[in-house]
Parts: sequence; structure tokens; C-alpha cells
Amino acid sequence: MLSKNTVKFIKSLHQKKYRAEHQKFFVEGEKSVVEVINSDFIIDFLVATPDFIERHNVLLKKCSFEIIQATKNQLESLGQYQSNDSALAVVKQKVNEAFTPDRNELVVALDDVRDPGNLGTIIRIADWYGIKKLLFSSQTADFYNPKVIQASMGSFTRIQFFYGDLPTVLSSWNLPVYGAFLDGENLHGLSKVEPGVILMGNESKGISPEVEPFVSRKITIPAFGSAESLNVAIATAVLCDNFKRLIG
Amino acid sequence: MLSKNTVKFIKSLHQKKYRAEHQKFFVEGEKSVVEVINSDFIIDFLVATPDFIERHNVLLKKCSFEIIQATKNQLESLGQYQSNDSALAVVKQKVNEAFTPDRNELVVALDDVRDPGNLGTIIRIADWYGIKKLLFSSQTADFYNPKVIQASMGSFTRIQFFYGDLPTVLSSWNLPVYGAFLDGENLHGLSKVEPGVILMGNESKGISPEVEPFVSRKITIPAFGSAESLNVAIATAVLCDNFKRLIG
Repeated sequence: MLSKNTVKFIKSLHQKKYRAEHQKFFVEGEKSVVEVINSDFIIDFLVATPDFIERHNVLLKKCSFEIIQATKNQLESLGQYQSNDSALAVVKQKVNEAFTPDRNELVVALDDVRDPGNLGTIIRIADWYGIKKLLFSSQTADFYNPKVIQASMGSFTRIQFFYGDLPTVLSSWNLPVYGAFLDGENLHGLSKVEPGVILMGNESKGISPEVEPFVSRKITIPAFGSAESLNVAIATAVLCDNFKRLIG
Repeated sequence: MLSKNTVKFIKSLHQKKYRAEHQKFFVEGEKSVVEVINSDFIIDFLVATPDFIERHNVLLKKCSFEIIQATKNQLESLGQYQSNDSALAVVKQKVNEAFTPDRNELVVALDDVRDPGNLGTIIRIADWYGIKKLLFSSQTADFYNPKVIQASMGSFTRIQFFYGDLPTVLSSWNLPVYGAFLDGENLHGLSKVEPGVILMGNESKGISPEVEPFVSRKITIPAFGSAESLNVAIATAVLCDNFKRLIG
């Protein structure tokens, strides 16, 4: 049974402060919950409807975490989904561990992308284009925000990421850094590029002056009309698409 | 002064039913309001703070519509913006008039794109890529939904559109129709394309069986990773980017 304390605990995970304190977060909805169970994330416990438990009994039998039964209404009061008749998993956060990319892989780095929806969408885009590693500045939205998890559509389970100081990390990697600017080289004019880092800036300010010196090439998506800008997730998709087309 | 009836009238425009009945909609925020005043849309009346009126007095002197003064709090209670200390314009809807594209231009057509945020983002993308004409199926989100207007970031003033029956319209145009599918030709493999219609389907169902026969080429954005799909606005951007790169 779902205790008052458990309810209170899950509700606290809507806030970053408590997610950080407990090093936990939650995942909602059938598809994402099944994906997180099958991933290398460690499940703390699961809250699920009897239907969900029955439908996934083969998967759940192999698991050792606690399973708490709940109704649809209870699930909906715990999470942020308007409708959830399946499950909610409380999951351990990963340790924020630095990695070094291989010479032949593309990486996406975000300089203060603040909107959780944008971050989640960018994670999904990276996963579509087979980009496995992402680097986030410390001011970038919290990866474990429920809106990030939701917008990533399960892709959050398939990428590696860490939060770090971009100048320090980018200079230690010593890879080409392709920064998205409004006044750079025409993206469509590139004919050959080396793998490296695709760097995207903040929604309103773009790439910050502190990070700009670490950009090796400024790249611009050509505008043919009159819109002043593109949303950062849209721009990330267009850059990833062109780089994957050129690099393969 | 802002009368009770005016307040009631503006609030009714949050609903499609009343927007259709009155053939009006509203536009909020400084940038979008200035853009709509400068566009070929006809303003019914303007609600604005004294500061906004003073800042834009040169522009407003040339206008003949009524200007009603209001406070920031009043503006925020009328519209959907959490913060609005500038203006809200009530604007006449355009007549739903069919057009025929030129042979050398790209057009975007939407088959039941239901989410207003997606529609607004697609309008902004079209405007970025200089695509001036859009065709919407009758089940596509309402162009005049405040969320569409907001997400388009002013681009709604710079495009032409109409709602129509896609099979009828597409067959009358007799142009190549490039449909976004998950099992079509590799977008990156295209080397030459003729201008025509980029057709995008519904968020969950894709292009409907009734419209599919009017597709001349099925196109797929190549996946390099494991995400199952891309958001429809993201996919529209990637298709527009590739077509503009190939066509210029």
C-alpha cells in the first residue's frame, strides 16, 4: 500500500532541491517506465496499477525492487501526467562522472539551455542521430526534471551525460568545437567536417562570452526568410542532421 | 477604459468557438503586437499600457483603431501570458482563401497536426526557410489559437495559409508531394529535387491513408540511433533544411 510518507517523498521529487538531496528522480508512463527498468539506471521502487503489474509480470519477476500497488487516481496525484494508468518509478540518479569522447564521435554540448522541454527534446534528437554523449553547463536545466524526462520520450535512458564547466572541459578535450551563432559560416557551405562538439547556447543569449573563445568554428543555419531565430532544439536538430550527413 | 463587456469579449476569444463566431483573435506581447500592426492583418482594437502607447506613439498615430488603456494586471488577466506589461491586440481573422503555389516554390502542408505549439513552431520554421505558403487539413490546430500565435514568434504575420481538403487541393495543384514517412527514401540520399509540397502528418498517426495516395515520394530522415521518432516540428525543420539546401 502507498503510505503517506511515500506520497510525500515522491511529491518532493518535483523539486530540484529534494531530487539533489536524495539523489533520486521519478519516471512516469508505461513506455518510459519499462525503458528505465530495462536500462542501466537503478530503480529504487515502483508504484504501479495491478494491470501494469500483470502486463509486465515477466519483466517484473526478474526485478528485486519493491512494487507498490496504486490506482490510476493515486498515480496521477503523484506525478505530473494528466493521465497515467500504468506506473511511476522512483530511480537513483547517476553519479556526475566526466567522460572523454572518442576522436570519431559527435558530441552535443549545451551552454545554459534553461527550458526543460528544450533539454528533453534535444536528448531525443541526439538519440535519433546516434549521438551518445552530451555535456551540460552547470546552468543547463536539470536532467532529472520530470519535464525533461517526459520530453525525451525514453531517450534519457540511452545517452551518457555530465554537468561541467564548459571552458575547462572543452579545453581538456582538445576537439573541434562547432558553435551555433547567427553570424558564422553557412552550414550548407560545409563540405567536410571532422567529428567534434556541436555547441548550442542559451535560448535568449546564445553562447556566452566565457565559452565563445573555445569555439573553433562558428556555424550558422542559413535563413531564407524573415524569422529572427529558431528555437534551440530545432537548431540542434538541423546541425546534427547536417553533421551526420557529412560525417556519416 | 476597459469595460466589463470588452473583458468578457476578449476572454471569449480563448475558445475556438467564439473566435470562429466573431472571426477575430488576439495577439499579446510587445513584439508580436507591433508586428501584427505593421502587417496586412486588420486590427479591431488595441489594449495597451500607457508606457506602450508612449513608446510606440509614432506608429500608433498613423492607426485609426481604438486604443484602450489598461494596467499590466489587467492585460495579464485578459490573455494567456504570465507576464505582459505592454499590449494585447484584437485582430480580424483573414478569409480562408485558397491559393495556388508557383512552380518554383516550396510549400508546407500539414495533415492533422493537432498540437498548437507544434503548429506555431512549424510556422516559425517555414518563415525562417522563406516558405511563404502553408496548407492545413481541416483537423489541423486552429491558426488563431493563442498558443499558435505565441509559438510562431511573429512569423504568423508573414505567411499565407488556408484550410482545405488535402486530397482535393493536392490533386488540383499537380505538384510533387514529398511526404514524411518512417519507411521512405533516405533524405540524405537525395541529390536533386523539384520544388513542391513538403507534407507532414499527425503527431501520432502520421500521414493518413486518405492522403497517402497523393504523395509522389516518401521521404525518411535517417536514424542513426535508437529514438523511435522525432517531434513533427523537428522533422519539418530537418526536411525544410535539406530541401532548401538542395533547391536553394
